[in-house]
Formats: sequence, structure tokens, C-alpha cells
Amino acid sequence: MIQIAIMGFGTVGGGVAEVLSRNGMQIAQKLGEEVSLKTILVRHFKDGPYRPRMTDDFARIENDPDLSVVVETIGGVDAAYEYTRRALEAGKHVVTANKQLVAERGAELLKLAKEKNVNYLFEASVGGGIPILRPLCQCMAANQIEEVYGILNGTTNYILTRMVRTGAFFTDALREAQAKGYAEADPTADIEGIDAGRKTCILADLAFGQQVLPESVPMEGISRLSLRDVKVAERAGYRIKLLGRAMRLPDGSRTAYVAPHLIPEDAPIATVEDVFNAIVVKGNATGEVMFYGRGAGALPTASAVVADVIDALQHREKRKEIGWSDNSAGFVGPETLPMRFYFRIDGSLTDAALAFGQVEVLSEDGETAFLTEPIPGNEAANRARNLNVLSKFRVLDT
Amino acid sequence: MIQIAIMGFGTVGGGVAEVLSRNGMQIAQKLGEEVSLKTILVRHFKDGPYRPRMTDDFARIENDPDLSVVVETIGGVDAAYEYTRRALEAGKHVVTANKQLVAERGAELLKLAKEKNVNYLFEASVGGGIPILRPLCQCMAANQIEEVYGILNGTTNYILTRMVRTGAFFTDALREAQAKGYAEADPTADIEGIDAGRKTCILADLAFGQQVLPESVPMEGISRLSLRDVKVAERAGYRIKLLGRAMRLPDGSRTAYVAPHLIPEDAPIATVEDVFNAIVVKGNATGEVMFYGRGAGALPTASAVVADVIDALQHREKRKEIGWSDNSAGFVGPETLPMRFYFRIDGSLTDAALAFGQVEVLSEDGETAFLTEPIPGNEAANRARNLNVLSKFRVLDT
Repeated sequence: MIQIAIMGFGTVGGGVAEVLSRNGMQIAQKLGEEVSLKTILVRHFKDGPYRPRMTDDFARIENDPDLSVVVETIGGVDAAYEYTRRALEAGKHVVTANKQLVAERGAELLKLAKEKNVNYLFEASVGGGIPILRPLCQCMAANQIEEVYGILNGTTNYILTRMVRTGAFFTDALREAQAKGYAEADPTADIEGIDAGRKTCILADLAFGQQVLPESVPMEGISRLSLRDVKVAERAGYRIKLLGRAMRLPDGSRTAYVAPHLIPEDAPIATVEDVFNAIVVKGNATGEVMFYGRGAGALPTASAVVADVIDALQHREKRKEIGWSDNSAGFVGPETLPMRFYFRIDGSLTDAALAFGQVEVLSEDGETAFLTEPIPGNEAANRARNLNVLSKFRVLDT
Repeated sequence: MIQIAIMGFGTVGGGVAEVLSRNGMQIAQKLGEEVSLKTILVRHFKDGPYRPRMTDDFARIENDPDLSVVVETIGGVDAAYEYTRRALEAGKHVVTANKQLVAERGAELLKLAKEKNVNYLFEASVGGGIPILRPLCQCMAANQIEEVYGILNGTTNYILTRMVRTGAFFTDALREAQAKGYAEADPTADIEGIDAGRKTCILADLAFGQQVLPESVPMEGISRLSLRDVKVAERAGYRIKLLGRAMRLPDGSRTAYVAPHLIPEDAPIATVEDVFNAIVVKGNATGEVMFYGRGAGALPTASAVVADVIDALQHREKRKEIGWSDNSAGFVGPETLPMRFYFRIDGSLTDAALAFGQVEVLSEDGETAFLTEPIPGNEAANRARNLNVLSKFRVLDT
């Protein structure tokens, strides 16, 4: 009998308890031993079947030699960091879904886990229930990873889908997402691209083996996206999606950013709708592979957490070598990367052509919407400086 | 320095050598040791840079204590089975891309690997470079797997894509696939669904933990598919794709089959075109996840093989617990499974309605094409017995 603890008993933590109970037999079969949930760390006690296992004292976990794995679903950095650090120091394996903590302090916690010869696993922190980190590290281990990009935030993808399908304005689509429980009361982290940015950092850390600091990654969300752009793009055969991207550049440096992109409608990732996520990995041998599924939700995320619990237990003697260097050198901004840009300007095609030379016109009716040739971002900004720019997005050329 | 051997030096075997050489640094970083290709087993010697490592004597591999991993890319069952068995008995880890061997003799070889405490890994046998077996077994370990289905054969998907896009007849599209090197001179295993069937068996073995014998799986290919069906389906909002499916039934039994299906065009798997593959896994906690990428080709497949080599070496002391019972009981045919069917008949709507009651008409011009309500396959066959049936396919309702 293996005994584990859950810290934080919200949506994901509760989901972990449910998956352990519902699929206990399958899990015991994989491990050759049953997994039992012994302790649940909460801030406020709640009545219910789990009440007897609850404690508000972390020391009850830290000092319990029976607990071999601790699941952290507290979220945020402060308490989550403190308890994770101490659990690792106490020689316990830690599994988490906490993307903020992994993005900000992952390198340090992984180093500590290595010193203590325990596992620190976090598959659920990116893509919810979609298997992505393990395939990236293990299944594509024979590749040099060139790029990882994806639709990493279900809330914004839901909003964009509603704008395309029903012609809803951004604010109405956001309210609808909130009413359905897909968006928080304070939706800032989602709609400003911060959540997608943290996940992009974790993908970049693992893909390239060096830390990418969240504060160095430009994050643009969808709050300034207008319905007009969505419609112009759609008529021209594109979908607008919020993408997180991380790339290895030809000179060996790395870049990462989050921004809305126009995506050709026949690209598989363009068909990803509602709260679904998809992540594309480009390897120098495998080419492009895509992973698709529910990026959030209690059970999908919890099942990724429990899979990590199983993996941690299967690697008790010989821990999994997952990690990255805390050296963040060699990271550059995306400004020098050549790509096509979409502009909508309050001006004529002549204005556009004067600034950019050859352009591809998407619409012309008082305003002009057009695509540039591939140019670096800083050059695009420079050439547009005398234009009255209403919106500007990148184009994903696959 | 780790030394390995490759048996069979065709497309995939050559690709393995190329990946090892091109990405040697990454691989050494993961393992903390270099991997060196020492011996290549061939039937006929070929000149070139690898000539000095070639041998036509399997004993040179079997009796070489320096070789810890043997890659089998011979294909087929006879020699591949014999050499795999002997390599495992000699205490060597074996990695393969050979779907026929794994589908037919996998349970037996995995049992032997377990006895000898070595790994027998075969990620490349399904989906080429797409990570699918490891995610299915490990990332979704906390799920009860309910269903696995996918586009598992690139050749047939290429032919279907050409029929839709250019209106080519089946035979012309097949000739085009052969000219491009996507189809073999004898394309039987691809177009009759046998290749997809072997992969379906492996997916079912792993998903449900019990062997599915290839000879018990009904396999229908695309050779009887007419351009007319492709067009009728397309106008009605469906794509025709060849799917392999494996399902857990409510009573605990399992079924699997290969057949062309009509798929609603807004399902992500409907957008999978050309030689690409995609596999959908349904877990009782994760819901649906999809894996997409190149299902064939030297480098994608080889990179999956090399990832398995790395994994085998990382699990030298404690082997990976992958396998299934050789008990194939509880497998049933798909005839009792209710689903919608597509029929095209030489007859009127009245004929259709008399046989099936309520139907959804897709086209009516001399011939009648329609969809039934969900009914078991044996009932569909029974009700259609007095109709002049020109074609009949299943519908994938997602």
C-alpha cells in the first residue's frame, strides 16, 4: 500500500481524489500495489467524505514517513513553493499541475529534487490532460527540437471560437465564457496571454534544456482583438488563434513569445475550437507532430497528475532525469525573426504599399487590411510608424 | 560508450543509422554516454561508409557481449522472429518498428523479455514518428481506456485525399501513390487494411491488456471504394477515411476492426490529409486526445526507434513494465455494435425507407445514398438483404 497526500483541494485536487478512487484498480494493476490517499492539506475544513483526512498543518505531511508522494495543487508561488521545497527536502516525490511555480522556480526545484534523488513531475502543468511533456522529452529524445508552438489556453480559444461562429464581440464572448465557468472572475491571466506564456516557458525549458524566464517573454493576449479582424481573416481563409511559440534560432539562441496569429484554415491547428488545446512539436528527425485534447478541466488535468504519481512511483530507485539548466543566457526577443504580418490600417492601399512595398490585400473599404512579405518584427514596426495602425498580428506560415 | 546493432538495413534501418549520427550529441547528453553503432546485419553486403560494420552472420550479434541493444528492422515474421527471440535470450534489449511481428508474436516476445529482465520496445510500430504507445501506456495510465481509433495507414490516406481533392479514380490515385514511393509495388497490405489492422491489434493489446489476434479482426480496405461515394459524402459534410478501431464494450468484452468510415468534416481527424496519420484515444478521465504527425518515412520512424533505444538504456536495471496477457478471450466481432451506416443503393428512397424506416437522404438521382439510424452491423446487413447495395460504410459519430 502506497500512501500519498494532496495539498490544496480545489478543482484539480478534488479531481485527483476522484481519479484515484474511480480508477483505483487500473492504477494498482500498473503499480502492483494500491495507492491510498492518506492526507489532504487544506486552508479551511470542509465537510464531506474526505473530512477525516484533512489537515491544515503542513508538518503533518512533512514529518509523515508513510507518505512517499505529495501532490501539489495549491497554485500560485508562495505557499506552493514553500511546501514543495520542504516536501522535496523531506525526501518525498512531488507532482504538480502548477504552471506558474514550474515556470518561475522549476530549475531550482528540479535541482533540489535531483540532490534528494526524488522525482518532481509536472505533466499536467501544460495542456491539462494532453500528454505533451513526456512525449516531448522521451518520445522525441532522438530529435533536436526546432520549435514548439500551440494553443495553450482554453479560455481564449473559446472566446475566439465564439467570435468566429456567432459574430459575438470580445466582451460578450468573455462574459459567456465566465458564465460557463471557462473564465475566472478576473480573467487577466488568460486574456492577456500570461497563462499561455507560463506554459510556453515550460515547453521551451524542456525543449531546449535552458531556463526561459517568464519576465523575458513578450506576452500579448486577445483583449485588443476586434471582431472586424476576426471577420477579415476568416474571409481571407485564416483563423485567428492565440499561440505560444518557442523556437531555436539558426545561431543557436532561443526565443519565445505569446501573440495572436493568423493561421491558414487548412492547417490542422486551425481547426482546434472551443476550450480544446493543441501543441505542435517540430523535431529535426520526426518533423511535425501535434497533440490535441482538453487543456483544462478537473478530470483531464487530474488524470495527468495521477499518471505522474504512477511514474514517480515506478522510478523510486532510479529517478527520471528531467530538468534544465538554470542558465538563461542565449535568450533573445522575437523582433529579429522574419515572418509575415497582418495589418489593418485607417488608410488606403497606396499608404500600405508606400510603407511595405509588395503586400497582399485582404480587404479595402475605407480601412485597408493586408499581409506583408516576411520581415523581422522590428522592421515591420519601423515601416508602419507613419501609418494609422488599427491592428497588427503575426501570420503562422506552416 | 554503449554499443548497439541494427538488423536489416533498409529504409528504417538506414534511417536509424542516420539519426544516431546526426543527433549523436543530443542522445549522448540524455544518456550521459555515447551510443555507437557497432554491427549491422544484412543479407547482401553493400558498399558505402557502413560496409566495415556489416555482417551476414547473426551469431556475430548474438555472441557479442559488447552489444546491449539490438534494433530489428528486418520486417515480416520469419527471420525477424527468430533473431529477436535469440537476441532476447542472449540478454539483449530489442527495439523494433516491425508491426507484423509485434501484432502476431508480441505477447510471447514480451514474456520472454520479462523472463530475461530486458526491454522489448516498439513505439515505431504504430504511427511511425508519432508518439502514441508510450503516451497510451504511461501518460494515460490513470485512465480506463474506452476506445482507440485512428488513421493508421498513410498510403490509403494519401489515395483518399487525392480522390477528394482532384476527383481521381481509385486506381489512378493508387498509381500516383506508387509513383511517389508512398505505396509498394504490391499494395495489398495497405489498401486491403491489413497494415492498419496490425497496428489496431497493437493498440488494442496495450489499451486493454489482453492479446487481440490479427486473424480475429475484420479488415476491410479501400479497394472497393468508388469516387461516387467520396463525392456524395463530401457534399453531405463528411470525409471518408480508413479507420482502425478498438473498443471496450459495456459488458467488458473487446472488439476491433478496420473499415472505411464517414467522418463529420468538423471532427479534427477529418482534416488529416495526405500521408499523415492521427490516433484518437478516449480515456474515462482524460476524455479524447489526438496524436497527429507523419506515420511513415525513414527519419520519423527511425527517430521513434532511437527514442526507444534511449528508453531501453535508461531502464537497464529496472525494465519497463510493458506488456499484455496472451489470453485472447473476451474478444468479439463488431457486428453487434450499434452505429450509423451509409448505404448507396440502386433503388429509390422508398426502397430505403421500407428496409430501414427513418433514414437521412444524402443524394437521390437514380441511385439513393442515405444514412441509417444507429443499428448493429448484423441488423444492418439483415435489413439490406433485399436491396441492391452498391456500397456500405460505417459512420464515425464523435
